[in-house]
Amino acid sequence: MTMPNNLVYEQERLDELHRNGYFIIQDPKRFCFGMDAVLLSGFAKAKKGERVLDLGTGTGIIPILMEAKTEAEDFKALEIQEESADMARRSVCYNHLEDKIEIVTGDIKEASAIFGASSFDVITTNPPYMIGTHGQNSPSAAKAIARHEVLCTLDDILRETAKMLVPGGRFYMVHRPFRLAEIMSKMVEYKIEPKRMQLVYPFVDKEPNMVLIEGLRGGKSRLAVEKPLIVYKEQGVYTDEIYDIYGY
Amino acid sequence: MTMPNNLVYEQERLDELHRNGYFIIQDPKRFCFGMDAVLLSGFAKAKKGERVLDLGTGTGIIPILMEAKTEAEDFKALEIQEESADMARRSVCYNHLEDKIEIVTGDIKEASAIFGASSFDVITTNPPYMIGTHGQNSPSAAKAIARHEVLCTLDDILRETAKMLVPGGRFYMVHRPFRLAEIMSKMVEYKIEPKRMQLVYPFVDKEPNMVLIEGLRGGKSRLAVEKPLIVYKEQGVYTDEIYDIYGY
Repeated sequence: MTMPNNLVYEQERLDELHRNGYFIIQDPKRFCFGMDAVLLSGFAKAKKGERVLDLGTGTGIIPILMEAKTEAEDFKALEIQEESADMARRSVCYNHLEDKIEIVTGDIKEASAIFGASSFDVITTNPPYMIGTHGQNSPSAAKAIARHEVLCTLDDILRETAKMLVPGGRFYMVHRPFRLAEIMSKMVEYKIEPKRMQLVYPFVDKEPNMVLIEGLRGGKSRLAVEKPLIVYKEQGVYTDEIYDIYGY
Repeated sequence: MTMPNNLVYEQERLDELHRNGYFIIQDPKRFCFGMDAVLLSGFAKAKKGERVLDLGTGTGIIPILMEAKTEAEDFKALEIQEESADMARRSVCYNHLEDKIEIVTGDIKEASAIFGASSFDVITTNPPYMIGTHGQNSPSAAKAIARHEVLCTLDDILRETAKMLVPGGRFYMVHRPFRLAEIMSKMVEYKIEPKRMQLVYPFVDKEPNMVLIEGLRGGKSRLAVEKPLIVYKEQGVYTDEIYDIYGY
């Protein structure tokens, strides 16, 4: 494994992505990507020529995986924490994707001012899941911002997404099922109609812990709920579907 | 099997419910209850002393099963089709439940005028699933009214439910997953907050074909999505959970 010292800093680590030979830089002290981001990059669709934006990109995992998995070549990714954005930029460099993925430092609440109205065909996000008041419980500020709605809310994300998507543009989000009523209600309110949904169940006899959802800007009301995505067939053994999404 | 001629008419049939020795009268030419109603009666909760209403009761299957499964003893059930209401009344008589279940002939759109505001602790419904314009395709008027939103819409049901439930009252509905975004959005709008949901998958690797949902009048936003309810473990063989709900 080559590891250019100028791109990977001390205390950071370089993880293999099992896609196109790509790697990603992560700092164990900061937020590291989880299965959520990997599943979203498998659920989301982007076609050649489409302009794709990832909101709150963190390590840059979603645009890097989607560049590998789709034909799209025009990715922008917004991240408010400069240290995370810098790390994501170095991952982009490491994989020689500078012509395809641009990491922008900025605030989701101002995203439509940064990128302009009707500027994207596809928007993805793996946003903070927890409501703001729980933010104090997180041990580090960087993790709190990634996990809790400290700096932006679901409403901010949907409002800005509605402005930035072209009519017929698609929105892909991974979130927690306990927020689903609010998610659907606000997506309908912002005219990002929920069109496709998949619940992720850790085991076949357990409650789901993630929901993947696709919205269509200006779409008609009709939701396709997909077959359950089950993560483990037994303790410690992924189902074939999960291995396939991970690319092992 | 005893079959008093004065209660069961020609062309009707008497089906065993596997609960308390109860039977139900059905007319194969009209709408017969399906798994939907049985699953809803297992999903819904009603406690001793609570006042329960079923909207669009058809054969009366839901209050009859819930009388058997719960401690509640005060059921009302509304049905717009007089022939169905009459048949439901005869099933109530057949099972000697006249003191506990009252079948009322009337229109869901006027339910709060019929029963009064804040008059129920629990409201259940297995409503027409299909949007109105498809109604013409159904071969008989009785079935069309039961299956399609010819005489009442989801909005009518939620509007009247919001009026009739006491604060903290519960709403239980079975519906089709393709309507889920509309269901959640309108439940939030009418302040019947979605609190519990279960998707029913015919097989573990197939799309769900039913959704069970519980709403809380005036509740806070937080949804518990339950483990998947899977109907068949193999072709023609129910899972243990389904046998349990059916009471076999």
